[in-house]
Amino acid sequence: MTSPGATSTGTRREHDLLGDRDVPADAYYGVQTLRANENFHITGVQLQHFPRMIEALTQVKRAAARANHRLGALDDERFAAIDRACEEIIGGALHEHFIVDMIQGGAGTSTNMNANEVIANRALEILGHEKGQYDRLHPNNHVNLGQSTNDVYPTAIRLTIMLSFPALAEAMDHLISTLRAKGEEFSSVLKMGRTQLQDAVPMTVGQEFHAWATTIEEDVQRLTRTATLFQEINLGATAIGTGITSDPRYAAMATAELAELTGVPFVVSADLVEATSDTGAFVTFSGILKRIAVKISKICNDLRLLSSGPRAGLHEINLPAVQPGSSIMPGKVNPVIPEVVNQVAYEVIGNDLSVTFAAEGGQLQLNVFEPVIAFNILESTQIMTRAMNTLADRCVAGITLNEEVLEDYLHRSIGVVTALVPVIGYAAATEVAEEALATGRPVRDLVLERGLLDEDRLAGLLSPASMTSPHRATATGTIPALDEEPEPAAATEQPDSGEVALPPTERLDF
Amino acid sequence: MTSPGATSTGTRREHDLLGDRDVPADAYYGVQTLRANENFHITGVQLQHFPRMIEALTQVKRAAARANHRLGALDDERFAAIDRACEEIIGGALHEHFIVDMIQGGAGTSTNMNANEVIANRALEILGHEKGQYDRLHPNNHVNLGQSTNDVYPTAIRLTIMLSFPALAEAMDHLISTLRAKGEEFSSVLKMGRTQLQDAVPMTVGQEFHAWATTIEEDVQRLTRTATLFQEINLGATAIGTGITSDPRYAAMATAELAELTGVPFVVSADLVEATSDTGAFVTFSGILKRIAVKISKICNDLRLLSSGPRAGLHEINLPAVQPGSSIMPGKVNPVIPEVVNQVAYEVIGNDLSVTFAAEGGQLQLNVFEPVIAFNILESTQIMTRAMNTLADRCVAGITLNEEVLEDYLHRSIGVVTALVPVIGYAAATEVAEEALATGRPVRDLVLERGLLDEDRLAGLLSPASMTSPHRATATGTIPALDEEPEPAAATEQPDSGEVALPPTERLDF
Amino acid sequence: MTSPGATSTGTRREHDLLGDRDVPADAYYGVQTLRANENFHITGVQLQHFPRMIEALTQVKRAAARANHRLGALDDERFAAIDRACEEIIGGALHEHFIVDMIQGGAGTSTNMNANEVIANRALEILGHEKGQYDRLHPNNHVNLGQSTNDVYPTAIRLTIMLSFPALAEAMDHLISTLRAKGEEFSSVLKMGRTQLQDAVPMTVGQEFHAWATTIEEDVQRLTRTATLFQEINLGATAIGTGITSDPRYAAMATAELAELTGVPFVVSADLVEATSDTGAFVTFSGILKRIAVKISKICNDLRLLSSGPRAGLHEINLPAVQPGSSIMPGKVNPVIPEVVNQVAYEVIGNDLSVTFAAEGGQLQLNVFEPVIAFNILESTQIMTRAMNTLADRCVAGITLNEEVLEDYLHRSIGVVTALVPVIGYAAATEVAEEALATGRPVRDLVLERGLLDEDRLAGLLSPASMTSPHRATATGTIPALDEEPEPAAATEQPDSGEVALPPTERLDF
Amino acid sequence: MTSPGATSTGTRREHDLLGDRDVPADAYYGVQTLRANENFHITGVQLQHFPRMIEALTQVKRAAARANHRLGALDDERFAAIDRACEEIIGGALHEHFIVDMIQGGAGTSTNMNANEVIANRALEILGHEKGQYDRLHPNNHVNLGQSTNDVYPTAIRLTIMLSFPALAEAMDHLISTLRAKGEEFSSVLKMGRTQLQDAVPMTVGQEFHAWATTIEEDVQRLTRTATLFQEINLGATAIGTGITSDPRYAAMATAELAELTGVPFVVSADLVEATSDTGAFVTFSGILKRIAVKISKICNDLRLLSSGPRAGLHEINLPAVQPGSSIMPGKVNPVIPEVVNQVAYEVIGNDLSVTFAAEGGQLQLNVFEPVIAFNILESTQIMTRAMNTLADRCVAGITLNEEVLEDYLHRSIGVVTALVPVIGYAAATEVAEEALATGRPVRDLVLERGLLDEDRLAGLLSPASMTSPHRATATGTIPALDEEPEPAAATEQPDSGEVALPPTERLDF
Repeated sequence: MTSPGATSTGTRREHDLLGDRDVPADAYYGVQTLRANENFHITGVQLQHFPRMIEALTQVKRAAARANHRLGALDDERFAAIDRACEEIIGGALHEHFIVDMIQGGAGTSTNMNANEVIANRALEILGHEKGQYDRLHPNNHVNLGQSTNDVYPTAIRLTIMLSFPALAEAMDHLISTLRAKGEEFSSVLKMGRTQLQDAVPMTVGQEFHAWATTIEEDVQRLTRTATLFQEINLGATAIGTGITSDPRYAAMATAELAELTGVPFVVSADLVEATSDTGAFVTFSGILKRIAVKISKICNDLRLLSSGPRAGLHEINLPAVQPGSSIMPGKVNPVIPEVVNQVAYEVIGNDLSVTFAAEGGQLQLNVFEPVIAFNILESTQIMTRAMNTLADRCVAGITLNEEVLEDYLHRSIGVVTALVPVIGYAAATEVAEEALATGRPVRDLVLERGLLDEDRLAGLLSPASMTSPHRATATGTIPALDEEPEPAAATEQPDSGEVALPPTERLDF
Repeated sequence: MTSPGATSTGTRREHDLLGDRDVPADAYYGVQTLRANENFHITGVQLQHFPRMIEALTQVKRAAARANHRLGALDDERFAAIDRACEEIIGGALHEHFIVDMIQGGAGTSTNMNANEVIANRALEILGHEKGQYDRLHPNNHVNLGQSTNDVYPTAIRLTIMLSFPALAEAMDHLISTLRAKGEEFSSVLKMGRTQLQDAVPMTVGQEFHAWATTIEEDVQRLTRTATLFQEINLGATAIGTGITSDPRYAAMATAELAELTGVPFVVSADLVEATSDTGAFVTFSGILKRIAVKISKICNDLRLLSSGPRAGLHEINLPAVQPGSSIMPGKVNPVIPEVVNQVAYEVIGNDLSVTFAAEGGQLQLNVFEPVIAFNILESTQIMTRAMNTLADRCVAGITLNEEVLEDYLHRSIGVVTALVPVIGYAAATEVAEEALATGRPVRDLVLERGLLDEDRLAGLLSPASMTSPHRATATGTIPALDEEPEPAAATEQPDSGEVALPPTERLDF
Repeated sequence: MTSPGATSTGTRREHDLLGDRDVPADAYYGVQTLRANENFHITGVQLQHFPRMIEALTQVKRAAARANHRLGALDDERFAAIDRACEEIIGGALHEHFIVDMIQGGAGTSTNMNANEVIANRALEILGHEKGQYDRLHPNNHVNLGQSTNDVYPTAIRLTIMLSFPALAEAMDHLISTLRAKGEEFSSVLKMGRTQLQDAVPMTVGQEFHAWATTIEEDVQRLTRTATLFQEINLGATAIGTGITSDPRYAAMATAELAELTGVPFVVSADLVEATSDTGAFVTFSGILKRIAVKISKICNDLRLLSSGPRAGLHEINLPAVQPGSSIMPGKVNPVIPEVVNQVAYEVIGNDLSVTFAAEGGQLQLNVFEPVIAFNILESTQIMTRAMNTLADRCVAGITLNEEVLEDYLHRSIGVVTALVPVIGYAAATEVAEEALATGRPVRDLVLERGLLDEDRLAGLLSPASMTSPHRATATGTIPALDEEPEPAAATEQPDSGEVALPPTERLDF
Repeated sequence: MTSPGATSTGTRREHDLLGDRDVPADAYYGVQTLRANENFHITGVQLQHFPRMIEALTQVKRAAARANHRLGALDDERFAAIDRACEEIIGGALHEHFIVDMIQGGAGTSTNMNANEVIANRALEILGHEKGQYDRLHPNNHVNLGQSTNDVYPTAIRLTIMLSFPALAEAMDHLISTLRAKGEEFSSVLKMGRTQLQDAVPMTVGQEFHAWATTIEEDVQRLTRTATLFQEINLGATAIGTGITSDPRYAAMATAELAELTGVPFVVSADLVEATSDTGAFVTFSGILKRIAVKISKICNDLRLLSSGPRAGLHEINLPAVQPGSSIMPGKVNPVIPEVVNQVAYEVIGNDLSVTFAAEGGQLQLNVFEPVIAFNILESTQIMTRAMNTLADRCVAGITLNEEVLEDYLHRSIGVVTALVPVIGYAAATEVAEEALATGRPVRDLVLERGLLDEDRLAGLLSPASMTSPHRATATGTIPALDEEPEPAAATEQPDSGEVALPPTERLDF
């Protein structure tokens, strides 16, 4: 005896509102996934390319099933089968049956149905039935019970991002510690700082690397904090946020189950109507990804600039050679790692614009364009993660300095004269600067030659410490140490609470 | 006896590195401002178009002067003159002398010098000297003492935004309360909700207005919170963040003075090198402005859609007529207010891209493109403020409903059948839906005609409360009230701390 | 005897500037591809995902080989082997050996080397050697002879686009003809036109569909014309456009060979230095893709709006149902095809921004970011092609009208009064309009009731022809036919050359 | 006797659909402009800031009046008055009465009415009446006769751009000739070319400047050609393109009149329904402005990079000092002109995004967001014009070279070894390169020391001509001059039509 819907040609017949269709007999997905697969042949990037998306979807289904079971809406047997099917999929099984294109119409209905069908068919097998015997356990009636695509899909995307971004944060932390290590390594090497690409004043190479680390560090904080926006979900909103047909206890219960399953402290949105159409959290998160892209691109621009040369460039640092450069120019090695990271940044910035357009396009009680939002945020997260790790391991970790070049710039630089201004005065300093510029001679030599300072005093003023941190140098020749505590007026740790009365404020959000 | 630099032709002569130039005798700005004004003839939008920018700049100058005075670097007489000049400018004086184009090269140096020169010349007058007698009080040596454009300008922009955004937040609050008032007014009027522009299920008009209010409310929170990023400043960084030549106590002291003068709890950045080149806070803030733009544009799209008609559109709501529509079509009134707000949103989104490009373009120890960042953020803030107030007062406040239209949609809608599914079952509901669609007859009539439910029961299921909030309807005819508290699993206020053990978490950031 | 570089473990050893590496023995790519594959693990989208890219690259290699052979720089035997290897690859062979990530550093060097290595190894086999015996035929010395990545890669991208865009143009033509067919089908059905979402004046449904067709038609023209920009190439530029080391005849000769091989009338750029760093043609082409995206998105917005309902929407047209809608709402069918096309448009607009950033990032004699430019343009072209075909076949072709709805809107509309203005006057028309708006009664009835016009005259003025095309109606009751030719003042075909003397002009560029 | 509508308080009373309002007695605008001014307080940038917009609007009004007069719809007296009023406004009069904000709702209706009212009131005066006596000559009935905002406004924007872009093209031409002059001046100075910021091979400074000129030259061509898209207009479309109520001869006649008045060869769009809602030409034109921005930004990046230093940068070129740099760093001069041009470019790129959003937002028979499109395109055109002139006059014209730096880079560079490869072979060249890199010694010295070439031969290979243009150098020592014409295979002027049969093609579109 053949199973219902099975045919002799390796297919089974399924039915939906639009009629009958033959589905491959071994497919865990069903007729609705089949139709979606035909309708949306766009990017070729299927759900299965984002395993965490499948994991997140299935967790949401599982949480819903658990809530329904607790509420008595789902019987023990079916619940057990659905729960086990979900467990298997979360464990990595059946991912190849999640075949819908990431960019799809229908506000995610096809994604939701793909999950419903795969879970249902696997649960049917667990129950000893055959795939397609939906009268026993139905994708909609049982797996999707109490749910709507309009609450399941937005929740699943939020969870997917929550599952995905830690890898990015980790990659950023890895880059930060790699930069910090270099910052320590180079903490005593002096170099010329530059503003507007013009020579400015000295700094240490360590300060430069630490500044890069600091700026990424702030991004990790912003990323992590922004991700908390995704903890607010709309499970139980059903169709438009009014919760029509749902048990009044369902929303809180399903949310709690999801929180327990995932460890993410999800909460029910206070305004489920708003939450069902709102994409603000995606816009904000994508904006933070853009911010990260902007910063990492700036860092890569700097790395490429500082390693330019070897003869007709700045040539301050050497990036590790990871592949041969030009075939036509012998010995050329190119900064290919920063170059690829720049391009990832451009990609992420473009993705943010797609998210912006999609968010603006929402109408009335739903934003139907969430699939393209999810696609872009997930892609950005993924390629940025890889880019960060690549930059850390294949570039930053291997950076070396050309100390003689750095020293030479400093030695020949006119900018060091700035450190002498408090002692020799602006007028004398300007005369020295002009002669240095005209003759190409070092500032040091000119100052000594003019008898403006003696060698010891000059050496003190041009010492690393003096030039790379605040120091009060005066004409009287004393360089007061910071022997009294700076007035505790304002500092990063604690706003002034002394003579200057400030309005109360919460801690800074960074 | 004429003053130094004065000429008989209504000008005074000033000197800088590039040589001599005649400045109008009554100008408070000086030679460097003059040159900048010639160099940057770009937008025609001068500093004086943003009075808060002048106020912020001057506050920074004043804070620096106070710190310098406390440190003994600025004598009593000059300090008093500078302080009073600043006070006058903050009070609104001399704004017409701030003439530099908002978009300028030089990383803000011209803006800084414009302030230095105006303050110096006014202070000279206060001291009884003539404008231009810089040997008595110098724009650079005294007004700019201990400062660099590279710490003054970024700080001044931050302060300008801090001074400017509250008006936007206030306008948003005004819009929110206007929407909430309408939400209350319409809280008992039923309507059809729509997803994907297709009829979905009922809701109240109040829910729709409250959802708009909620979504903007979240934006106010994000805006306000993001603005706290600007409390971290880099005063004392001098040229590149190393604080070269600065007194070690200056940074904290100047920051505290600025905090006292403005009431903003500013703190010194922990990594001044990073802070001097970093534009992350601007990118984030502009991204939030973009988020607001996206949301307000969506709301305006909704308003235009819901008021479409009067005959061949949805015609659910009436926007107040604020001006005649077409000259060629008698009686046409158009939704001009939402239309202009949409355009403001597009402008803001475009401005955010300019900010993004400028931020990415920073190099090494400085981002030289901060002027265009400031210009775009300030313009966005300003036009968005006006747009919010315009939308609230000239549109939302006057919205009325076409209740018979709303009722008719609901009456004829097939979507209400969804509320019956838990009682009559999906199969019977589908049959009713199909007949309703084919015949155009109301669902109510068909249900009664088929004897599926009696009138009372039907009326109960289709009651407003039943259709617009979670309700458990079962085939047995009972509609259980929510007589037991929902399990305290997860709620906005407090994550579940009962049987489901959740990891500790801080309060959500929204 | 084993081949040079072969090892006992299924690999062969290869060597480059960075040292030795083992390459899988059956790999046609070599050591440089291997390194690139390790360095650039970013998108996971490899060259082989764009077969036309491989085809284009190989055609460029083949053209170079032919030119080198004609110039006597490549001997007969090696040339024959290279030429045949290229022919095979163009025919579809060995594509799985093109494994470099589409987003890569090095300005395309890795892509170029991937092609050089695969061609060399296949040519070696053809010559009876083993893969890796580069002393017999070398990827650089022979396959890349006379070339630089900096001329090969930009040329290959240009050719790839030339090979790819016709499919998009064809899909657009298909959509156009589908729209035109519907335009013909609906040419006599009247409907209300809308401006600003408010009822305006009547038009035919055919006019609406034809307008959509026309707007896409213009895009095909712009797309095709813009693509001609890619006919200008820089083969022979070598490293930076100066043609260093190249035979003076090579540039023209290689270009002619490429033109012959591909049928594309390529020409040598007049300024090869400029051409080597310029990405203007990509920016322009991507801008046209963006223009297409904007327009198709607008059309999809219109389709979704016109098909909204079925009860609480415009409900003028029906889109074919291609998959079930909501599981929770019986009978709901959603406009999933326009929705997915909207999202493709957003994706394309975002891609254009990535292209813009990459183009702006070029420095000095090269734009190193062409890989991300190519990736985005090719992806946009591909997904847009699929979207156009999907829209035509799965949506537009099956659109049907709800004629009674259209008729009802028209019947009840106040806008038709506009057609009466020239006869009954603006004042009377306004009175009718006001009463119609207040009472909901049709304009026709009110005009007859007021005795403003008799039935025949009214029917004439409200006839389809009268309302949907220019017609001069006067109070005297005559409706002059256009019995005299309109003065040939200006028309699409031919600008006036009569009494109004116009400056000579070329034909319009659209 | 007072005039109708005049009051004793310096106002006159006017009336429109919404009721009575008092208009300042001396205002040429009327009640509708007054309302618009109150409704749209957004940017503060009024119509009068764009005089060409007023000129264009008035030209369209004048052309319409002429056509109406020819068609007998406007009597001689009123026509003469309107025509003369238009002439005066075009001549510069009354611009201060065009007060509507550039960003406005209503699809330009307020702009159209502002023009109608000012023209009507001035015409009334010419006829001897008082302002406001609309019963004699009416803004709508006479000035706006036969027109709709929906055809007037899009046409006026098109004409405004046609009137505005030539100044940009001229500024670009000025920049081009300035760059070309420098290219000639520096045509014999050698320098190192760079790819990926790494030393590549030699070129002349002239080639670099000429490449910049060439790339802008292509933009002028694209700009001019794209502007021809605006020659297609929709005058006569009236409300939605169907031409309802218009005389069948009007469209062609009004178009011809406009062409005569302006010298622009306008033509009537073939599909007026499409033309009335289409914004494709704006998107394309804005895209070209973006392309120009991208290119000019790249050039400014290059200028800033090449002038970096003076000691710790490339320092190849000197930009003229146009203002003092830092106050804290003596002698610092910054590249402020390229910096401001970069920012203009960012602004233009952002504006393009606003245009894109506005274009996508069009619905059904009209795009109501054309005001923000116009605003952004006109602003971009204006600031780009100023930026181009500023860059040419205040930067490029004064650029000087540091020839010893250029020579030194070349002398020390390893890249010159590329020129020797064809003679000494890749292997020997690589050895020389490696030793040069390791020791810092010049390639020339090493080649002589190793006896690889004699001095004469080496000098020949390293001659400017040999290194900066195609040259066939062989091991036999002959450097064949290009004594035979290169095969006429492919060249810019004429594609090969000889042995290689190419498909016919039109001339390239660049």
